[in-house]
Amino acid sequence: MSKVVVRSFSLSLDGYGAGPDQDLEHPLGVGGPEAFDWFFHTRTFQAMHGGSDGETGIDDDFASQAFDNLGAWILGRNMFGPVRGPWPDDSWKGWWGEEPPYHVPVFVLTHHAREPLAMKGGTTFYFVTDGFESALEQARKAAGDKDVRIGGGPATIRQYLRARLIDELHLVISPVLLGRGESLMQGLDMRALGYECVKHAAGSRAVAHVWLRKSA
Amino acid sequence: MSKVVVRSFSLSLDGYGAGPDQDLEHPLGVGGPEAFDWFFHTRTFQAMHGGSDGETGIDDDFASQAFDNLGAWILGRNMFGPVRGPWPDDSWKGWWGEEPPYHVPVFVLTHHAREPLAMKGGTTFYFVTDGFESALEQARKAAGDKDVRIGGGPATIRQYLRARLIDELHLVISPVLLGRGESLMQGLDMRALGYECVKHAAGSRAVAHVWLRKSA
Repeated sequence: MSKVVVRSFSLSLDGYGAGPDQDLEHPLGVGGPEAFDWFFHTRTFQAMHGGSDGETGIDDDFASQAFDNLGAWILGRNMFGPVRGPWPDDSWKGWWGEEPPYHVPVFVLTHHAREPLAMKGGTTFYFVTDGFESALEQARKAAGDKDVRIGGGPATIRQYLRARLIDELHLVISPVLLGRGESLMQGLDMRALGYECVKHAAGSRAVAHVWLRKSA
Repeated sequence: MSKVVVRSFSLSLDGYGAGPDQDLEHPLGVGGPEAFDWFFHTRTFQAMHGGSDGETGIDDDFASQAFDNLGAWILGRNMFGPVRGPWPDDSWKGWWGEEPPYHVPVFVLTHHAREPLAMKGGTTFYFVTDGFESALEQARKAAGDKDVRIGGGPATIRQYLRARLIDELHLVISPVLLGRGESLMQGLDMRALGYECVKHAAGSRAVAHVWLRKSA
């Protein structure tokens, strides 16, 4: 059955899913890339960007599995780009170049309407202005029997967690302290929301991989 | 050289070092014991309580090393006991029975004076009313060339972190979500305070062991 999932989502040791002060030069916030260092070294990440290098092993295995059986993605506006407020024009097409690594419909949460944007390789960005629940409804429809992956950032994931709409999360703990940024779980009572840790595994560059699941 | 250390300190996946609502029945707060489950199973813990069972392996190795070379401990008032306000009498002697597992001087932070309390096995509790820096000064003096371990709870560790007085922390990430409680790092900019992750290792029952160090 189709599930709503978060996968391969990096967390710093102090619980941040992104660094502070995101802008064009800092898509992951200041310091953010350090939390993704484990991922940048994987063969999976290298292949997403046209390369054939990268490390195999535990981290790569899980990074690769994180792309299995996906029928649609949901991204927060900030994960799509650094543009704030109304779209000045259609020139911003995401951080990922002409052929983004999604290859399925991607629903971008925004307050500002924009025409769908079809990219090379099967990715189409749809801009959803009527709320995160509507985005999920559309993503489910697009995904069919496959899963819907919430890509991030932290604020977007928190919105879905609060509404208990996420079935599973695969989080990757990085050996990094960010100090500031966007926390994933701070102030959310994950236990009261019904989540528990169902599995954990050692990482290689990553400290560990953990899987959370919402109880029925 | 003598160092100020935190060792074998359990953290939930959502960053809590203790559960909420500590009292006599819940020394670690509600849900707190789950974060210590990895520790309760170790031979080290069992031996601390007079047993000879318990698991060996990675978690036990690190739990055991956490007691190496200690010359003194510092504990927050709540880690010593559930009594709040002035001591009604001298009947409360800690959570650990007649022979506490410290075997060295232990400095307890409190606002309420009390005579030192000598226990079996070399542990003496000293009650320090003139602040955490004074407690550290006394603990260093008592420890000599050995290390001073800050036992907790989270509020006590945070106080020393903010003052950059801790040299090393060994944290143990547990496969548990507490949802509420006392966070160790929330609102502390660990990066600005000069801390970084210098090592990590897989756990067995624990998710992982991580070591943070203050840069010079």
